[in-house]
Amino acid sequence: SISQDIDHILETQSALAIDLGGTNLRVAIVGMRGNIVKKYTQPNPKTYEARMQLILKMCADAMHDSVSLNCRILGVGVSTGGRVNPQEGVVLDSTNLIQEWSSVDLRTPISDSLHLPVWVDNDGNCASLAEKKFGHGKRVENFVTVITGTGIGGGIIHNNELVHGSTFCAAELGHIMVSLEGPECSCGSRGCIEAYASGMALQKEAKRLHDEDLLEVEGMNIKLAEPITAAHLISAARLGNNNADTVLNKASTALGVGIVNILHTVNPTLVILSGVLASYYQAPVQRIISERALPSAQNIKVVTSELEEPALLGAASMVLDYATRRLY
Amino acid sequence: SISQDIDHILETQSALAIDLGGTNLRVAIVGMRGNIVKKYTQPNPKTYEARMQLILKMCADAMHDSVSLNCRILGVGVSTGGRVNPQEGVVLDSTNLIQEWSSVDLRTPISDSLHLPVWVDNDGNCASLAEKKFGHGKRVENFVTVITGTGIGGGIIHNNELVHGSTFCAAELGHIMVSLEGPECSCGSRGCIEAYASGMALQKEAKRLHDEDLLEVEGMNIKLAEPITAAHLISAARLGNNNADTVLNKASTALGVGIVNILHTVNPTLVILSGVLASYYQAPVQRIISERALPSAQNIKVVTSELEEPALLGAASMVLDYATRRLY
Ligand SMILES: [Ca+2]
Ligand SMILES: [Ca+2]
Ligand SMILES: [Zn+2]
Ligand SMILES: [Zn+2]
Repeated sequence: SISQDIDHILETQSALAIDLGGTNLRVAIVGMRGNIVKKYTQPNPKTYEARMQLILKMCADAMHDSVSLNCRILGVGVSTGGRVNPQEGVVLDSTNLIQEWSSVDLRTPISDSLHLPVWVDNDGNCASLAEKKFGHGKRVENFVTVITGTGIGGGIIHNNELVHGSTFCAAELGHIMVSLEGPECSCGSRGCIEAYASGMALQKEAKRLHDEDLLEVEGMNIKLAEPITAAHLISAARLGNNNADTVLNKASTALGVGIVNILHTVNPTLVILSGVLASYYQAPVQRIISERALPSAQNIKVVTSELEEPALLGAASMVLDYATRRLY
Repeated sequence: SISQDIDHILETQSALAIDLGGTNLRVAIVGMRGNIVKKYTQPNPKTYEARMQLILKMCADAMHDSVSLNCRILGVGVSTGGRVNPQEGVVLDSTNLIQEWSSVDLRTPISDSLHLPVWVDNDGNCASLAEKKFGHGKRVENFVTVITGTGIGGGIIHNNELVHGSTFCAAELGHIMVSLEGPECSCGSRGCIEAYASGMALQKEAKRLHDEDLLEVEGMNIKLAEPITAAHLISAARLGNNNADTVLNKASTALGVGIVNILHTVNPTLVILSGVLASYYQAPVQRIISERALPSAQNIKVVTSELEEPALLGAASMVLDYATRRLY
């Protein structure tokens, strides 16, 4: 029937999603339902010129492939590290992770090259949009996403919309401070939850313990050339290493107290933990909330994201949401 | 002319404002421009029954006076300590400051008695509404009010609206924690900015110094029966008392770091400090922001409220805003 035909055509609507991270540059064709049809990965070049060139090249390749894959690309969504002005499609300044990435207009060159509309937002905000459209944030009007990866990022959804803030630095949740002194943070301040609980911070502590010969315990075997990571710290603690346990307890407490601060500020319905350390932190954060939040905020649920590719899905959702708003 | 007559009639529109604080119960007739036409003050009774009776009595008196004062009362606005459901007009639970003040329906009895619509919100939120209508928050879409009085409260205006939160405990800014350990707070947690920087916290430190004979300095003369307050601490510090200075520095740092946490969460355009300690804290908080906020949040301005009666004006503004929305 015609109605089935239209349904079928609508189902082929897709987005081109770009994820600009500290290590990799990724492009994906993403379908209406959040299905990743095809994905392209390259190391993220170190200079602006090489990076822009590679972005345009990977997008052109994906556009070419999209035809034979029967995907109609409606637009391009970009997730990037750094502070972003989404109205202009410009990266204002970047984290230390991505070099030569300040005052970069992403919209104009991509749009000129592909003749498609382009949306840009930062990775924390994209992760929140992904949860809103495809994850635990579906039909939730007010929630917060906290991403514990190499660093700590986040996004706040209030009344179904992202909170960007007056200078586009809302939801810089990694730099919530839970100590007047506390460990030095990459931002120049001290006591930020990123300096306690990020993958970077845990790795630093793991290395320190390893250097002092305090990391390895019975049942654990670290090879000589093996890079020491947060995962070693977690394994060691599980195998009864008290030093590792102390470090992780402090990290969990810091993260939990930081999240309580968010609850006492915007009081969302739900907290979604995302990133590699999310499942590790879920239970301790929920416990810290029950210990340190006001009674009226103690029942706020903490869940772990189930999305495989939050940055790509969030980038795609900016395109797909806009398209569906116009079409249905 | 008729147009002048109508202007004159519109100008006589007023609100009845009620402020329920820890010490006093106050009622005021407030005009369109935030002018307090008449004010009534009584000690706030200790029991629910006596309090409700007194509220209704004071309102009836004010309604009576309003006729001869040529004020047309359009409705009643209530500012109260505690957590409030403004949709229902109910105090959900109260701070320790007001006894027998949980699950209290304020709207029904006041509305039944006066035959007027009734709005209720908490004192921090009312202070923010007052700034929005009559103070530094005029024409500012996104700002935060932090009230440093006996305790610390606050309110957040986002896109011209108050943020109430999923359980009506948004903007519980006094319980933002800036220390994993830190001083005990009345809420049961530790390290809250209220436990460092509120009038109560400073008074406690002032008393401690006084008991240890460390408060008085040259040029300062504390009488025997004189109650020791935060004001003594500030005077002593200004006269060169290092102990007092250390306490106040810590308090300012804690408050400043707490406010930076708010900036990194909702990133407002403006921070308004309100309450008795506001003018004292303004400069140090601005300095802490420049030292510890992300560069993109460092230029956010901190100002001191110029409103004499934020709670009453905010309570009135709920009435006047609703009325003007309907009439113009
Ligand atoms: Ca963010
Ligand atoms: Ca409040
Ligand atoms: Zn930081
Ligand atoms: Zn507290």
